[in-house]
Amino acid sequence: MSEPIVFMLDVAAADAAEPAAGWASTVRRIEPGAPSLQATELSATRGDGVFETLGVLDGHPQAVDAHFWRLANSAEILELPAPNLGQWRVAMRTAGATIPVDRQGGIKLVLSRGVEGTGQPTGWLIATVAEDDFRSRTEGWKVVTLDRGYRHDLSEHAPWLLPGAKTLSYAVNMAALREARRRGASNAIFVSSDGFVMEAPQSTVVMRRGDTLVTPRTDIGILPGTTQLSVFALAAEWGLATESRLVPAAELLDSDGVWLMSSVALATPLTEIDGHAVAVDRELTERLNAALLARRE
Amino acid sequence: MSEPIVFMLDVAAADAAEPAAGWASTVRRIEPGAPSLQATELSATRGDGVFETLGVLDGHPQAVDAHFWRLANSAEILELPAPNLGQWRVAMRTAGATIPVDRQGGIKLVLSRGVEGTGQPTGWLIATVAEDDFRSRTEGWKVVTLDRGYRHDLSEHAPWLLPGAKTLSYAVNMAALREARRRGASNAIFVSSDGFVMEAPQSTVVMRRGDTLVTPRTDIGILPGTTQLSVFALAAEWGLATESRLVPAAELLDSDGVWLMSSVALATPLTEIDGHAVAVDRELTERLNAALLARRE
Repeated sequence: MSEPIVFMLDVAAADAAEPAAGWASTVRRIEPGAPSLQATELSATRGDGVFETLGVLDGHPQAVDAHFWRLANSAEILELPAPNLGQWRVAMRTAGATIPVDRQGGIKLVLSRGVEGTGQPTGWLIATVAEDDFRSRTEGWKVVTLDRGYRHDLSEHAPWLLPGAKTLSYAVNMAALREARRRGASNAIFVSSDGFVMEAPQSTVVMRRGDTLVTPRTDIGILPGTTQLSVFALAAEWGLATESRLVPAAELLDSDGVWLMSSVALATPLTEIDGHAVAVDRELTERLNAALLARRE
Repeated sequence: MSEPIVFMLDVAAADAAEPAAGWASTVRRIEPGAPSLQATELSATRGDGVFETLGVLDGHPQAVDAHFWRLANSAEILELPAPNLGQWRVAMRTAGATIPVDRQGGIKLVLSRGVEGTGQPTGWLIATVAEDDFRSRTEGWKVVTLDRGYRHDLSEHAPWLLPGAKTLSYAVNMAALREARRRGASNAIFVSSDGFVMEAPQSTVVMRRGDTLVTPRTDIGILPGTTQLSVFALAAEWGLATESRLVPAAELLDSDGVWLMSSVALATPLTEIDGHAVAVDRELTERLNAALLARRE
């Protein structure tokens, strides 16, 4: 396995001007395996921060603007300092350049509340070459549905539950993936306590019904999907309709195709949900992944 | 503010024998401000780990066995390696010895899933001298109730939501405290979506009704409180009855006293809940905190 490459950021205020030496001077590459975080970091002791994971193709980070919008939105929900996007853009290019052009990879951006007591955020980036052969893009995944415990209409009344923020507090997401594997599945779909499809622990759910692609509305407390956004833009070009709405879980079973979508794995078709076979649209899957892999920004 | 003191642990397997040089040889004190965690630590990127915070009085960590039980229980729920309690005990004494005997303080124990890809857990301890003057123990707190979004009977059916585990994924707990401050309160009480008292973001709720101390049942997906356990043991000695049961939120308002209990702050009486004055039992509050402060283990 190739080692991930870490860059620490001297986090600049959102409105700070680029220093004379350029933003690159605020980005520090860390020796492999060297510690770079203090043990009192609130990311590590409280999961208190936000992140994004971008796909990298041919050395180019993908869907940058969508990820930057979401990073800034998550930071606002958590009342973290707004990220200086000029700085993060340069840092991201520096990190992206470490992924060989013939490999697929990912960059994680992390913005944490910082070392406890300092009031100063901490920022870093992790560039990773994907070890996955992405056979799942053709072979598909079996998934299980898991109750997320929240009603679909909860989030508008309870902002302290941080709906719509991609926080570092992912212990439940990780536990859901372990539960899926325990049940012989590769992934999970969270369903609201009143039976509506939410999202997967690390990806967005999209289904096809006739000539329409459908994804759950984000106002039920889920993340807007960056890859799903790209796919809906492609679908519009291809003459498919798109829809964001409430999706009762049972609808997934009689759809014309269901996918989990994320930045590095891209569009993975589902073959089974809770042991029930679902229709697989191989043609559209192939077309989607080919188009996503052909992006260079 | 005095700097927290960090100790990193070379985490031993649960059944490992003490090395010839003693467990203390597996504990490494970190220079103030020096980094000791890798940026790919799953605690920092996924909130994936568990923790405990112990109070320290007169140099002695308090309620050690209760905290160790809960640390091991949390680790089991997250499928982390079981902690070697002999090792953690020695590490904790080493950390506790840095708190001056005339000061109150705390020790945080953290057990994380470790650096991504290694399969090896990371462990550390943070010893902190309390800056608080603990006037809240006599003056009390105003609190607000906040919907936790989960039904009281959810947790038994959804272990992937990690009920009963004290995980590092505390972003929602921290957001609840910010929401409380925004509303002019000092703390918050989480209530289930169907109206039962759960817990506070960092403490346990206890109320007095006549000659009985009452706390919410833990099978509704909350943490067993270590300080509440100590208080219930004291109450039994003092001839008070104790009860763990479902507590409808409205009951708090006509109780004979409500407290938030935690390891460092101890028993804080509540003066107002959602703007309604609640009865304050100053005598019992004083007696409780005096007894808790007199403990030496």
